[in-house]
Amino acid sequence: MHGLMMNLPLNISALIQHADRCHGDTEIVSRTVEGGIHRYTYSDAHRRSRQLANALTALGVKASDRIGTLAWNGYRHLEIYFGSSGIGAVCHTVNPRLFPEQITYIVNHAEDTFLFFDLTFLPLVEKLAPHCKGVRGWVAMTDRAHMPTSSLDLLCYEDLVNAHSDDFEWPVLDENLASSLCYTSGTTGNPKGVLYSHRSTILHAYAACLPDALNLSARDVVLPVVPMFHVNAWGLPYSAPLVGAKLVFPGAQLDGASLVELFESEKVTCSAGVPTIWLGLLQHVKAKGIGFGTLKRTVIGGSACPPAMIRTFEDEYGVQVLHAWGMTELSPLGTVNTFKSRHLEWSEAERHALQNKQGRAIFGVEMKIVDDEGRELPRDGKAFGDLLVRGPWITREYFRGEGGDPLADGWFPTGDVATLDQDGFMQITDRSKDVIKSGGEWISSIDLENAAMAHPSVAEAAVIGIAHPKWDERPLLLVRLKEGAATTREDMLKFFEGRVAKWWIPDDVVFVENLPHTATGKLLKTKLREDFKAHKLPGA
Amino acid sequence: MHGLMMNLPLNISALIQHADRCHGDTEIVSRTVEGGIHRYTYSDAHRRSRQLANALTALGVKASDRIGTLAWNGYRHLEIYFGSSGIGAVCHTVNPRLFPEQITYIVNHAEDTFLFFDLTFLPLVEKLAPHCKGVRGWVAMTDRAHMPTSSLDLLCYEDLVNAHSDDFEWPVLDENLASSLCYTSGTTGNPKGVLYSHRSTILHAYAACLPDALNLSARDVVLPVVPMFHVNAWGLPYSAPLVGAKLVFPGAQLDGASLVELFESEKVTCSAGVPTIWLGLLQHVKAKGIGFGTLKRTVIGGSACPPAMIRTFEDEYGVQVLHAWGMTELSPLGTVNTFKSRHLEWSEAERHALQNKQGRAIFGVEMKIVDDEGRELPRDGKAFGDLLVRGPWITREYFRGEGGDPLADGWFPTGDVATLDQDGFMQITDRSKDVIKSGGEWISSIDLENAAMAHPSVAEAAVIGIAHPKWDERPLLLVRLKEGAATTREDMLKFFEGRVAKWWIPDDVVFVENLPHTATGKLLKTKLREDFKAHKLPGA
Repeated sequence: MHGLMMNLPLNISALIQHADRCHGDTEIVSRTVEGGIHRYTYSDAHRRSRQLANALTALGVKASDRIGTLAWNGYRHLEIYFGSSGIGAVCHTVNPRLFPEQITYIVNHAEDTFLFFDLTFLPLVEKLAPHCKGVRGWVAMTDRAHMPTSSLDLLCYEDLVNAHSDDFEWPVLDENLASSLCYTSGTTGNPKGVLYSHRSTILHAYAACLPDALNLSARDVVLPVVPMFHVNAWGLPYSAPLVGAKLVFPGAQLDGASLVELFESEKVTCSAGVPTIWLGLLQHVKAKGIGFGTLKRTVIGGSACPPAMIRTFEDEYGVQVLHAWGMTELSPLGTVNTFKSRHLEWSEAERHALQNKQGRAIFGVEMKIVDDEGRELPRDGKAFGDLLVRGPWITREYFRGEGGDPLADGWFPTGDVATLDQDGFMQITDRSKDVIKSGGEWISSIDLENAAMAHPSVAEAAVIGIAHPKWDERPLLLVRLKEGAATTREDMLKFFEGRVAKWWIPDDVVFVENLPHTATGKLLKTKLREDFKAHKLPGA
Repeated sequence: MHGLMMNLPLNISALIQHADRCHGDTEIVSRTVEGGIHRYTYSDAHRRSRQLANALTALGVKASDRIGTLAWNGYRHLEIYFGSSGIGAVCHTVNPRLFPEQITYIVNHAEDTFLFFDLTFLPLVEKLAPHCKGVRGWVAMTDRAHMPTSSLDLLCYEDLVNAHSDDFEWPVLDENLASSLCYTSGTTGNPKGVLYSHRSTILHAYAACLPDALNLSARDVVLPVVPMFHVNAWGLPYSAPLVGAKLVFPGAQLDGASLVELFESEKVTCSAGVPTIWLGLLQHVKAKGIGFGTLKRTVIGGSACPPAMIRTFEDEYGVQVLHAWGMTELSPLGTVNTFKSRHLEWSEAERHALQNKQGRAIFGVEMKIVDDEGRELPRDGKAFGDLLVRGPWITREYFRGEGGDPLADGWFPTGDVATLDQDGFMQITDRSKDVIKSGGEWISSIDLENAAMAHPSVAEAAVIGIAHPKWDERPLLLVRLKEGAATTREDMLKFFEGRVAKWWIPDDVVFVENLPHTATGKLLKTKLREDFKAHKLPGA
């Protein structure tokens, strides 16, 4: 017997409609690519999203057609989010920082019908166009006055929008309809597309606003530094209208000075981004001897947040750090680190240690850790295993079946190795493919790298597993020394004593000139494993 | 094209499972009917809910069978919430404060298979049993030692639970399956059942926790004074495990002294209840010259919160009032009154006036006001009309089709008359059936009653519409005077001058000994309209 509540699907268009009705004059402020600050309201954004919906329909865009974007965080990008998904099309945000060949692959694989781009990316677009024959139109996100000269026959965004009325009723869509698409680029294989639905997006947006997640309200001013081409700016363009928070978009200027200027002028209370961006910001703030006037909290994720960064934000500037963990495949939020009652009574040192964990699961995300045989491991904060997740905003397969069935018995293997404690706090200890399996036990390559990095002569360290006749694998440490610094193999190995378990200490050290990285700055361990697979460990 | 996220239904069992996994040792504290305080954890609650699930299954309970309860807020009631809905049965909370004939009607109409009751209600149950032949078992919610002697062949809750293991896997249920049932008793006709689904319950639980709704986190200690038989205690038994908040259940003792004792001993941070209950509490606190040590906020709804009560809580005791509005048909939350950024800059008087409104819609609830012809009225804070709502946790029809199709073009008519302002704030001005329609314009009976109540001689006032040959309807004021007080018709009518628009002033006054009320204490205006339908207005 079914319940007797209204059968209303969760639709993305409801977000901008709600913001219009209940927060119509709340502002959306954007630093534009053309120069200067643009400001308007949720009512304006809703009106122009409807105009865009009419424009897309007139262009022949049909349900489930992919609409590509190569764009910064800005109001026009927001309009594309709602205008495209709202008519049942798929908003496909492309990461312009990838190599052009990857972008070409992605645009063609997604079969984008139109591609909207900020002026910054005109040179890139001109490079892509000859290889992306499926794209029926390239739309410059600007007005007629700023239209560039180009070898391409470009469409002008403002002309498109202004040519259509705002008389448009959002269609009621099946909530399982695809709404947006974002490719994730691993270190191996082709990029794979994660295809979100209206349902997954709305459920994630609710969860993201919770007090123990991003804690968003109508009193917040949110500046997403994390790009709208990176897992939908962690969902903030959806969560902000859900609660009626003011949105501030930084455009292309992500340097510390530009961000701080916006933080202060727009009275930003909440921000979100990866550690790298905060590094630049904190350097600027320190150099200028200034602080944050209104910023209350910032979400840090994408990679593990350095403990020192948490302490600087909290202790020096009074800004709460929300250490978070997620993945493109998780929409992206999985965990956020916020205290429970009892933690407020802990010692400072204990609380600081806890904050280095990636946090606890939001309701809607189930987590477990398993060993090599898929057996669930205890939630004791010590055992570590492959982290598996499950929930309504988690990928079940990639776009067009790429990479086959990614699930293990209905769970998504994150590729991370982690611990879970009895309070539900998760801490990532390694990547699954990087963990070193020695004599049936697991050694965390990241723990070893962190230990090595503490050595005063070490600029960068990488640890990989090398085949071993007796132990299956043993760790090899690769070290790039600081300029002018010197140390020895023996000194390095001695340095680990007391820092890690004795049997974790690497079997050997190699000093290198350079360590290889991916386009997004991560250590490229696949290459290291290939380069050093013939390395002979002492005693092996 | 569908999105490629996991097809996982929203199930109520996931709430208690999440709380067990991530907040296993967070406490649930109950004042028991047998006497004394009971305390255990979410892990215990989950374990015993699974035992109960086995017990219910062994009793032959099938999917969609109704399980009735006549019970206070307590841990066993919580176990029944999860144990019954978790196996696909329907948790039917019956209001023990209704007249026995109404309860008999409800139990029989719902076709309850088993009825669980707190010892308080044994006399009631013995009265009901002969008339409720469909009930296969009456379960006393106590242990063997406290089992009462009774003319009935009672089952013992603890015996049931203890006879079964906790080895139980919650089934994966269609999220549209009915999960719980709550009857609403209007002033006319039979009580009507509102049948919630797993989906509506989970969506409502997410929304209720939002910062601009009840703002619930793992740092909260929640004491629902609002009964679990009254729209599921406004959803708190679902929202608290969603975020891992500690729960405190007051049992049968809802007097000020007992509540304050629990507030202080359990460090309650958040509570919820109707104005009447807070009146007793505030009187106690004032008489004792004490305050609230840890209480940060309290949700007040069920009927309009008197402005003086908001001021007392906030100004004298530093407790934030969350003025809220909802209905059984809305699960129940529709609106909550929380400020936006701009309101923080308003004058105190302006903010206080705003707080008297019922608040703004949570995302998921759409609202509009319409005139007699169903035309939408402006959201200007002035126009008032019938309030219609729509959303995934709002009733589309009543259980077993009672009362026919309640919807108007897909919207649920709340039966309230309200204004909506440009910020989305709603204020109820009357009940639809009580509003007086005079010469094509509407007059709020509640505004007139409030104005009359300000007269020093008036104990209680009611205003009803009386048929009028020229104006269709004109207001008649019925007044019960304070003991020993005296006033005249002319004095009463003069009192309205300057307080309401001239054409709103009632045409006549009748002084009465008593005004009729419903079982839940509301003015019974249907009876008044019947009693006074022949009343001749002067000049009519």
